[in-house]
Amino acid sequence: MNQDITRAYRRISNYVNKTPVMTSRTLNKLVSAQVYLKCENFQRVGAFKVRGAFNAIQHLIEVENPAGIITHSSGNHAQAVALASRELNVQSLIVMPANAPSVKKEATRGYGAKIIECGNNPQDRVEKTEEVVAEYGYPVVHPYNDYNIIHGAGTAAYELLTEVGELDFILAPVGGGGLLSGTSKCLKSMFPKSSAIGVEPLNANDAYLSFKDGTQIYPSVNPNTIADGLRTSLGDITFKTIKKFVDDIVTVTEEQIILAMKFLWERMKIVVEPSGAVPLAGLLNLTKSRQKDEFKNKQIGIILSGGNIDLTDFFRTLSLSIQD
Amino acid sequence: MNQDITRAYRRISNYVNKTPVMTSRTLNKLVSAQVYLKCENFQRVGAFKVRGAFNAIQHLIEVENPAGIITHSSGNHAQAVALASRELNVQSLIVMPANAPSVKKEATRGYGAKIIECGNNPQDRVEKTEEVVAEYGYPVVHPYNDYNIIHGAGTAAYELLTEVGELDFILAPVGGGGLLSGTSKCLKSMFPKSSAIGVEPLNANDAYLSFKDGTQIYPSVNPNTIADGLRTSLGDITFKTIKKFVDDIVTVTEEQIILAMKFLWERMKIVVEPSGAVPLAGLLNLTKSRQKDEFKNKQIGIILSGGNIDLTDFFRTLSLSIQD
Repeated sequence: MNQDITRAYRRISNYVNKTPVMTSRTLNKLVSAQVYLKCENFQRVGAFKVRGAFNAIQHLIEVENPAGIITHSSGNHAQAVALASRELNVQSLIVMPANAPSVKKEATRGYGAKIIECGNNPQDRVEKTEEVVAEYGYPVVHPYNDYNIIHGAGTAAYELLTEVGELDFILAPVGGGGLLSGTSKCLKSMFPKSSAIGVEPLNANDAYLSFKDGTQIYPSVNPNTIADGLRTSLGDITFKTIKKFVDDIVTVTEEQIILAMKFLWERMKIVVEPSGAVPLAGLLNLTKSRQKDEFKNKQIGIILSGGNIDLTDFFRTLSLSIQD
Repeated sequence: MNQDITRAYRRISNYVNKTPVMTSRTLNKLVSAQVYLKCENFQRVGAFKVRGAFNAIQHLIEVENPAGIITHSSGNHAQAVALASRELNVQSLIVMPANAPSVKKEATRGYGAKIIECGNNPQDRVEKTEEVVAEYGYPVVHPYNDYNIIHGAGTAAYELLTEVGELDFILAPVGGGGLLSGTSKCLKSMFPKSSAIGVEPLNANDAYLSFKDGTQIYPSVNPNTIADGLRTSLGDITFKTIKKFVDDIVTVTEEQIILAMKFLWERMKIVVEPSGAVPLAGLLNLTKSRQKDEFKNKQIGIILSGGNIDLTDFFRTLSLSIQD
């Protein structure tokens, strides 16, 4: 067993939810295999991101005990860092694009973080983060390209494998690659013969291209995918880790992502965001393709990474419908 | 402990899911109490109805071993009876209005039931059911006004109380009254000092009126509520049982039902149908009102009765959004 991941687990287990593992007769029949869904949509702040945030910030406290930390994110990582900082008594400064949804800014502020706005393109974000670092002198917690974030993220797979035992395959979504790095590293250290598969939207297939090439990182260019958590590109650390531990990366279309989400909501009654449904879309695809015999009657784990999706419009429509 | 409910539990426990009990820090803070949500949305066919169906049909097999059974329903009861009949090797004939959604007819047929269409008003349904009984001679499994249905439904509370121990209150939705009857009967037999509260849509407040009157059943008249599972009226058996074991019935508005649903979907990441969210709407209401001290720091159980809601439009809109 990998010591980095068990150490991360000891660090964070008092702070994060041990999320449930769900199964479905219907799904097992559909794919002719035994599938275990690790429900990180039920995690605190609604996504696996708190695992990495608690681990990375605890690690920083152990080594340099900073008064604050800095990060940049407009997504689940921002709220995760804000929550972890509050509970670990560290100030958090979060660089967020000015055009990020105000509901996300409010939620992050609600956890006690200070939001620092930047321009809307990636270069603005980098420059603003450097400015903030120069001003405050706090360490930066990168959203994914950081070993402590990776090992924290890997604790979801650790819990899953500890609960259900050996799995033949684990599928995880890949955006920046933190979750896939941690998942595959954990799997290979516990069950070296098992396979880790990354699943990525075809419309943001930078990790797929980088992995197939094997020598360089292809950056994500104008990724147009509903899976908003997976639009980022690999970093050097996640690229290296994925090349070492991951067996394959496959892609899925937007329509396949929505169908997988629909299955999870309608049949399993759980709210999973598009990014979180991506690995199930991958499995549904793989088990329909020529490779299907590879998965037949196998034990398969899937990391449902999160459940944060804006339902304002859905409930507004529902409210209007009753006022007729 | 009530023997009817433990006997029902022994009969059905190999066939139904032991559904999870969920908790939420946010919810507990919001209502200043400890809340346990019994997630029957994760039950087979997506609702508690399978508990009563398996119990009632097993009971019939024990006492008269019929070749088939008859019921009338266009809702969750239809699918529950169809599934239970298939697994218990009994034919099922289900009387359903001609205007029932075809997706529901298909699902029920998918479990092997024979659908018999009738006209769209309640009187048509009664007449058609009588015709079918005369033709086939099979017994009828009423959707709620039947002790075996009630005792089956009560096993959800039994599992909840066995898992979490004594609760000060349990809240359940009330439509025809089967679930509330079984829940309250179970609660009072295990913890006589605890309180059972029924929650009903204000727009379908027949059980509320009947309970407050105490002498007669007020039928539901043109109930215009989004909680489609709660439009029915009490029967003589459920009225009697509720009068005996239930402490209070309260009502909620349509807007309150939608807000409770929104909380469950957005914050807890579970898909619960409007009828299933009704008791949480009741609790949110009660803990904001003058009675709030009554609930302060109490242990409160809520039966989330089901998760079947048509999401076709939601996912169609989502699909269209990606094709831009």
